[in-house]
Amino acid sequence: MTGARATSTRIVRDGRAVAGTRALPEEVPVALVYNGTTQAVMMATPADLEDLGRGFTVTEGLAGRDEIDAPEVVTHETGIEVRMWLPEGRAAAMAARRRAMTGPVGCGLCGVDSLDQVLRELPPVGEGVKVAPSDIARAMAELRAGQALHDRTRAVHGAGFYLPGQGLVAVREDVGRHNALDKLIGAVGDCSAGMIVLTSRVSVEMVQKSAMAGAGVIAAVSAPTTLAVRTAEAAGLTLVALARDETFEIFTHAKRVTEEGEDVA
Amino acid sequence: MTGARATSTRIVRDGRAVAGTRALPEEVPVALVYNGTTQAVMMATPADLEDLGRGFTVTEGLAGRDEIDAPEVVTHETGIEVRMWLPEGRAAAMAARRRAMTGPVGCGLCGVDSLDQVLRELPPVGEGVKVAPSDIARAMAELRAGQALHDRTRAVHGAGFYLPGQGLVAVREDVGRHNALDKLIGAVGDCSAGMIVLTSRVSVEMVQKSAMAGAGVIAAVSAPTTLAVRTAEAAGLTLVALARDETFEIFTHAKRVTEEGEDVA
Repeated sequence: MTGARATSTRIVRDGRAVAGTRALPEEVPVALVYNGTTQAVMMATPADLEDLGRGFTVTEGLAGRDEIDAPEVVTHETGIEVRMWLPEGRAAAMAARRRAMTGPVGCGLCGVDSLDQVLRELPPVGEGVKVAPSDIARAMAELRAGQALHDRTRAVHGAGFYLPGQGLVAVREDVGRHNALDKLIGAVGDCSAGMIVLTSRVSVEMVQKSAMAGAGVIAAVSAPTTLAVRTAEAAGLTLVALARDETFEIFTHAKRVTEEGEDVA
Repeated sequence: MTGARATSTRIVRDGRAVAGTRALPEEVPVALVYNGTTQAVMMATPADLEDLGRGFTVTEGLAGRDEIDAPEVVTHETGIEVRMWLPEGRAAAMAARRRAMTGPVGCGLCGVDSLDQVLRELPPVGEGVKVAPSDIARAMAELRAGQALHDRTRAVHGAGFYLPGQGLVAVREDVGRHNALDKLIGAVGDCSAGMIVLTSRVSVEMVQKSAMAGAGVIAAVSAPTTLAVRTAEAAGLTLVALARDETFEIFTHAKRVTEEGEDVA
């Protein structure tokens, strides 16, 4: 499978050492290149890199998902290039906010070099979907079941997209949670009809990326930060976290989570 | 406690919702400013920021820990500035490799805008210490016991420094694992006499930072990436991971892990 590699290990248990092998996640420098210029270099799992390119384009506000052609993935000895071409007006806008950035394991905000620029304006979220507690439980179960790379390595993050009535329709994985979410958004496009589901904690940029993709609801296994909560509140996004089966906590905009039995139509 | 804040939540369990509060980790934009110029902006937990400034200075190779005066921490409405002053020669070198970078939750490599520059040359690690399986078990237990912020929030990473014969002598925490390690290195300085202990997975930049601090041994709760293993191998650093009590795996330079009963003097 792409993204993991069997690695020699020396397993020590009860003072005895034995040789073994273990599947570890791969991590590779990936350069996102627009119109011939490097916009970002990040450490990522080398799988679904076309999705990563498309998703990053959307979540950074560089262009719409369908304004660019299929990214070209070029492998070098030192890493991988994902080459994309922006339409002319978009390219000019990008040049104006050009940022040189490198992220380890997913770096959503890199390059803005002042505090004022970090907390960028987000588009307000639309009406979004309504979800029931049973949807959240089902989405979490299907995300766990769909993490092929995590099953092998126990060491990558997953992001999924859930449509009420249909179930989980897409999953992407990466050593970096930001990359997993960018890959998902690149694969799905507009996320306003469903819920984004995350295996990870929710930092502010997970909220920013979700809002840029139009998602009305995020549900995550782990906790959010205080800034993620404030940002979701301001953007109109429903933030559900600490989700285990049908037990979870709603931090913002509870209106999109229905009581069981309530009409969700 | 600094770094956490009680936040309103709506807890849903078995279809019933109740209002509650939960301590969530704080995440704040932090600008690292050298000689009046922003070098990096990252999302970090607002605690031990002087340590973060000193540690980042070391792990980025900008200057030695004691070449700078105590960082000045200045709080603004939009975030926090950590102001530092480099000696003249160091400042010139920094200007030459000036990078504009912003990291979400810890961004060790941000700003280098080509693949070639990502995998920087590391100083080879010195002889380092020897550790026994019982040291690894003790270090992990003491790290778990020392995570005050994690105890409240269940959502931050920890990095500790362990000296054989003495135990864990320092712990630092952050929403970002890279920041937790930078804070630790800023607090400890030269790490060659002990072992760095991490609650997190080990990505390549955790190895890079540890090597920059002179550490010969890293022990982590979770798995490394393949690139982290290759980088530790090349730098001469002993990488122990998947550590639970006295069960763990050694991925590189097993010579520094003694068999129980072997003379470690």
